Amino acid sequence: MDKIKVGILGATGAVGQRFVQMLADHPWFEIAALGASDRSAGVKYKDRRWVLQPDMPAAVRDMELRLGEPENFTDCRIIFSATPNDVAKRVEGEFAAAGFYVFTNASPYRMEPDVPLMITDVNPDHAALIRVQQARRGWPGFIVANANCTATHLTSVLKPLHDAFGLEKVFVVSMQAVSGAGYPGVPTLDIADNVIPFINNEEPKLEEEPRKMLGRLAGDRIEYADFAISAHCNRVPTLDGHMECVSVALRRKATPEEAAEVLRSYRSLPQELGLPSAPDPCIVVRDEPDRPQVRLDRMAGNGMATVVGRIRRDPILDLKFVLLGHNTVRGAAGGSVLNAELLVKQGYIA
Amino acid sequence: MDKIKVGILGATGAVGQRFVQMLADHPWFEIAALGASDRSAGVKYKDRRWVLQPDMPAAVRDMELRLGEPENFTDCRIIFSATPNDVAKRVEGEFAAAGFYVFTNASPYRMEPDVPLMITDVNPDHAALIRVQQARRGWPGFIVANANCTATHLTSVLKPLHDAFGLEKVFVVSMQAVSGAGYPGVPTLDIADNVIPFINNEEPKLEEEPRKMLGRLAGDRIEYADFAISAHCNRVPTLDGHMECVSVALRRKATPEEAAEVLRSYRSLPQELGLPSAPDPCIVVRDEPDRPQVRLDRMAGNGMATVVGRIRRDPILDLKFVLLGHNTVRGAAGGSVLNAELLVKQGYIA
Amino acid sequence: MDKIKVGILGATGAVGQRFVQMLADHPWFEIAALGASDRSAGVKYKDRRWVLQPDMPAAVRDMELRLGEPENFTDCRIIFSATPNDVAKRVEGEFAAAGFYVFTNASPYRMEPDVPLMITDVNPDHAALIRVQQARRGWPGFIVANANCTATHLTSVLKPLHDAFGLEKVFVVSMQAVSGAGYPGVPTLDIADNVIPFINNEEPKLEEEPRKMLGRLAGDRIEYADFAISAHCNRVPTLDGHMECVSVALRRKATPEEAAEVLRSYRSLPQELGLPSAPDPCIVVRDEPDRPQVRLDRMAGNGMATVVGRIRRDPILDLKFVLLGHNTVRGAAGGSVLNAELLVKQGYIA
Amino acid sequence: MDKIKVGILGATGAVGQRFVQMLADHPWFEIAALGASDRSAGVKYKDRRWVLQPDMPAAVRDMELRLGEPENFTDCRIIFSATPNDVAKRVEGEFAAAGFYVFTNASPYRMEPDVPLMITDVNPDHAALIRVQQARRGWPGFIVANANCTATHLTSVLKPLHDAFGLEKVFVVSMQAVSGAGYPGVPTLDIADNVIPFINNEEPKLEEEPRKMLGRLAGDRIEYADFAISAHCNRVPTLDGHMECVSVALRRKATPEEAAEVLRSYRSLPQELGLPSAPDPCIVVRDEPDRPQVRLDRMAGNGMATVVGRIRRDPILDLKFVLLGHNTVRGAAGGSVLNAELLVKQGYIA
Repeated sequence: MDKIKVGILGATGAVGQRFVQMLADHPWFEIAALGASDRSAGVKYKDRRWVLQPDMPAAVRDMELRLGEPENFTDCRIIFSATPNDVAKRVEGEFAAAGFYVFTNASPYRMEPDVPLMITDVNPDHAALIRVQQARRGWPGFIVANANCTATHLTSVLKPLHDAFGLEKVFVVSMQAVSGAGYPGVPTLDIADNVIPFINNEEPKLEEEPRKMLGRLAGDRIEYADFAISAHCNRVPTLDGHMECVSVALRRKATPEEAAEVLRSYRSLPQELGLPSAPDPCIVVRDEPDRPQVRLDRMAGNGMATVVGRIRRDPILDLKFVLLGHNTVRGAAGGSVLNAELLVKQGYIA
Repeated sequence: MDKIKVGILGATGAVGQRFVQMLADHPWFEIAALGASDRSAGVKYKDRRWVLQPDMPAAVRDMELRLGEPENFTDCRIIFSATPNDVAKRVEGEFAAAGFYVFTNASPYRMEPDVPLMITDVNPDHAALIRVQQARRGWPGFIVANANCTATHLTSVLKPLHDAFGLEKVFVVSMQAVSGAGYPGVPTLDIADNVIPFINNEEPKLEEEPRKMLGRLAGDRIEYADFAISAHCNRVPTLDGHMECVSVALRRKATPEEAAEVLRSYRSLPQELGLPSAPDPCIVVRDEPDRPQVRLDRMAGNGMATVVGRIRRDPILDLKFVLLGHNTVRGAAGGSVLNAELLVKQGYIA
Repeated sequence: MDKIKVGILGATGAVGQRFVQMLADHPWFEIAALGASDRSAGVKYKDRRWVLQPDMPAAVRDMELRLGEPENFTDCRIIFSATPNDVAKRVEGEFAAAGFYVFTNASPYRMEPDVPLMITDVNPDHAALIRVQQARRGWPGFIVANANCTATHLTSVLKPLHDAFGLEKVFVVSMQAVSGAGYPGVPTLDIADNVIPFINNEEPKLEEEPRKMLGRLAGDRIEYADFAISAHCNRVPTLDGHMECVSVALRRKATPEEAAEVLRSYRSLPQELGLPSAPDPCIVVRDEPDRPQVRLDRMAGNGMATVVGRIRRDPILDLKFVLLGHNTVRGAAGGSVLNAELLVKQGYIA
Repeated sequence: MDKIKVGILGATGAVGQRFVQMLADHPWFEIAALGASDRSAGVKYKDRRWVLQPDMPAAVRDMELRLGEPENFTDCRIIFSATPNDVAKRVEGEFAAAGFYVFTNASPYRMEPDVPLMITDVNPDHAALIRVQQARRGWPGFIVANANCTATHLTSVLKPLHDAFGLEKVFVVSMQAVSGAGYPGVPTLDIADNVIPFINNEEPKLEEEPRKMLGRLAGDRIEYADFAISAHCNRVPTLDGHMECVSVALRRKATPEEAAEVLRSYRSLPQELGLPSAPDPCIVVRDEPDRPQVRLDRMAGNGMATVVGRIRRDPILDLKFVLLGHNTVRGAAGGSVLNAELLVKQGYIA
């Protein structure tokens, strides 16, 4: 089949570059347009600073950046959006209204009742909200959001546990890499030899988004999952990869071994459908006493998997463990790409 | 008065060097002897690698290292011990049996029922166990232990909260600096751009030691404080300073403002007695949304204070906050020095 | 005597903050005014981000930032300038024309023929250019510049060697800390686990400024010193402190021991005059095979000294060695403060 | 053809692990044996700490470590040696005497007159020394050494310049990554936020090895190249990749553009022969003002290429530039693997 032409909004930012990197050789998608703010529009992509390794893919070097408005993307059907949050609401809405299929990493639409907040391995059925959204808003296109990076990996691990044992309470403390703040992002003078115990607006996302994603689709709405989350979020001096220490109370008791088995054996739709960017397995369980580690494990499943370890009894609740995932691959661009792959297979992309 | 002559066991290690640094100009104590293993005995102190800044104090450079046995320290009355854990039980016992007053940073005696595990600002009354210890063991000297570095700062902050509101449950996740592993300690290849979610034997200490220190002296024993602690311990790429994210359930409800006030107004015996190494205040409460930070705040009170911030409601328990303290100053050598100062004032040092 | 009132331009930047820190308790100077751009003017100083440790001095917290124009600083006699280079030429000229004594860390005036580019320990006699400057420009005030941070420490070490042996050729490769780029400065994503072999416009400064400072005052002008410098400048992942590897050819041969003796015995005017910020000695020579080291030695002489080590034969030229100095203390704010102290003693500050 | 069975000595160390990683899927070679000291002999390879990413190759996990003596490697024809320097002389000699073809990364044999010190892209003709070596020592096997990591990349870039313009003088200052010191190697407390201007015995290697490799094979010996090198070596806080700042004097003048063209167009035997590990090109020339950078460029050519940039005039000599190469890939294990590939093609491996 011909590849589907896609555009990337916010293509010059750190997440936008991850979209470019993941889509440059994609078997189903072809980058047709790169969007930017009016400051960069008209400039060649290669004249903007590339912050990833390896070097910028040759195919996009000479593409001219377009102002991120729908009329400039008429050759595209799918839009991947790394638009800054302060303009994402307006811009993404305009694209959906103009008939584009928008997969966004921005936060404004995430908690809207008619917008699927999706992790392909967790809640692919929430895609059904798209029809509600289109009907309610009169959009020929639609918007599907992926979650906050830290919430994505937490939810991926909570899903099998919630299915098997029922979650009641979740404590989570994150240790997040600097790439989570984009580029230029965190100054060296702020984070070298340091931990900053605060990331603006991160804890509310981590306390809310998982409950929507683990919620039940009830007709035209999501019933949020019925458990509480308490989050502390920290910035630590690592480049990529968010680590999370988690303690959970379960409705049905489980041993660490049972939990490990549930996580290890978890299979979901993307693997079954053979989506090109799907990691297999989506959850990697490590048995060593000191894994996962950020630098060693963040690229598990090409950065698309979540790694869990140290599953053990919690002296107050039931279980505790640590998890790790790549924040700009699965936790950002990769999550959106996988969402798009799923919706192609499910027939949502006309 | 004449200064009291002191010896330092394990003087070549990282904590031993902190002892040397803190005691080199001490108003009450004078370093008379430096102990080491037989590998270093007989060598001049300046011929061993010094890992702190500023440079090694001039007064100790030409001291000859002595084998760490009681007969080599007869000119000393107090012994500060940074002896490795694997020999500390035997060695420290021999010193106490020989009449020395031993202040140890090693772990083997910490949980012994007749050994005070002391933080001067938390449980100075536990010093009374010394008489029990001497009677039971027939020692003319004694052993007083300070706590694990992470437990020290946690307990310092829990103390006023426990007094005021009663603790019921404590969740703590630590992010610990590499100096906590001594020297040479953590290889760069292990921790650069990384988090290691495991520190051998650290979580049990953090889950137990605070309950002894916050316990009640009941005649010849300590009744452990009646609350549970769940700990996750992580190594992060910082040089000095342990950060801890804490969530607590209280027996009597308290607002964040009430907790802040209790912590801010906490005063304890060392400040009242004017002990030379006592920080004043011993707990620093920061109001900024992003403090304490490791590099900015670890030297609060010359590294002897504990810094608390982000005191806020916890969505599951009652309160959550973050705390920070210097691990090799207050959390190790400094804790022992302050214990010794207190016991001089209390008359335990004959 | 009453303290001399001083103003600080660019007080919110990284170097401006160093000025504040060094002047907050100065025995001769008193901070009367803090200047900023129109974006910050009117704001209290404490409401701007402070990037140094320890915390912002209490005395300046409530000072209101003033727009950096002469009419707002009439209560000051001395101006310390950390003004950004792009406006420094205009602003500093206006202050000098209005009668202020301006000590600047900015670069625009450094190479002007009638502006002293001064290191107190190197060329205090160049202060005589002030009278040339005032006559030529009709300024009642004056401008005295300190050098680029890397050039400052290089020149400090070259001075005694040039006096004793005559320099012919100098190769220098710098490894510079991120604080040299100000705040926010270097993004973590750019420099963590990295070396950047380029610092914009740094090599020309390092190849030219030392030749002016080591030049001879000839009436109303400086005859540049007659030797060539080749420089490579690198950014490395350190916080503070610039390291420089240097190879030199001398006009009169010297052994490493002779060079070490010349450096070790060097004394200069600031020590003789007892200037309050003068380090003594101004050059520290280390004999260990692996010193100076950035983290261990950058605070030598409270950050005001230059540390030299590994003085040895060069297989091509004559000698090679390594030197280290603090870039924002002696290499920036501290250099200007020391210049002002000297000129007070020399009677240039009426 | 059947794969040639190879053994790896010192397989548990950092370089030994790189050998394992590069040989696990090699098209011509098959790992048949892993050697270790008597402390590890008999242990399964998976029970030793693996320090690279990704995880240890599955094929070697269950191999039992053998004591590194010839009688334990009779199933191998080629030996790759990462043996510690203090035993390499004896051990490697025994293997060559027993008929093995030894490719060593250790230093003891490098400067022996009858041992080829080889970089495939620089001096493949030096392989002819093997016959001299075998005749002189009576060995059925032989030893071929690769150079010090820093010398390897320097020499790779000097080679085309020497061929084209004739080198006269070379100044080099290295900034070397911690992996160069092996594992556990450099403690975090030694190098974080630091530069150490000394690496034991590194400068002599860097001043001598390139002159042997760029020397001329004259019958049964090498005439060293007739130019001088002055080296400063520094350890900087990077994980992998050595950066070098170089200034050169040439016998025939050349512009930066001419030098760039000579480097860019350099082709050598490995590319022509299609050796499986050969990078193509072996020298990458970057035109950006701030490249190469350690983290961005160390994996050029899968870590087998050398990257050069900032080629410009030197104000004292002729040219200056910066170069970068991976120290444990091309600079260690990869250099030996490529040497072995070349000698297979040249018929030295019977």
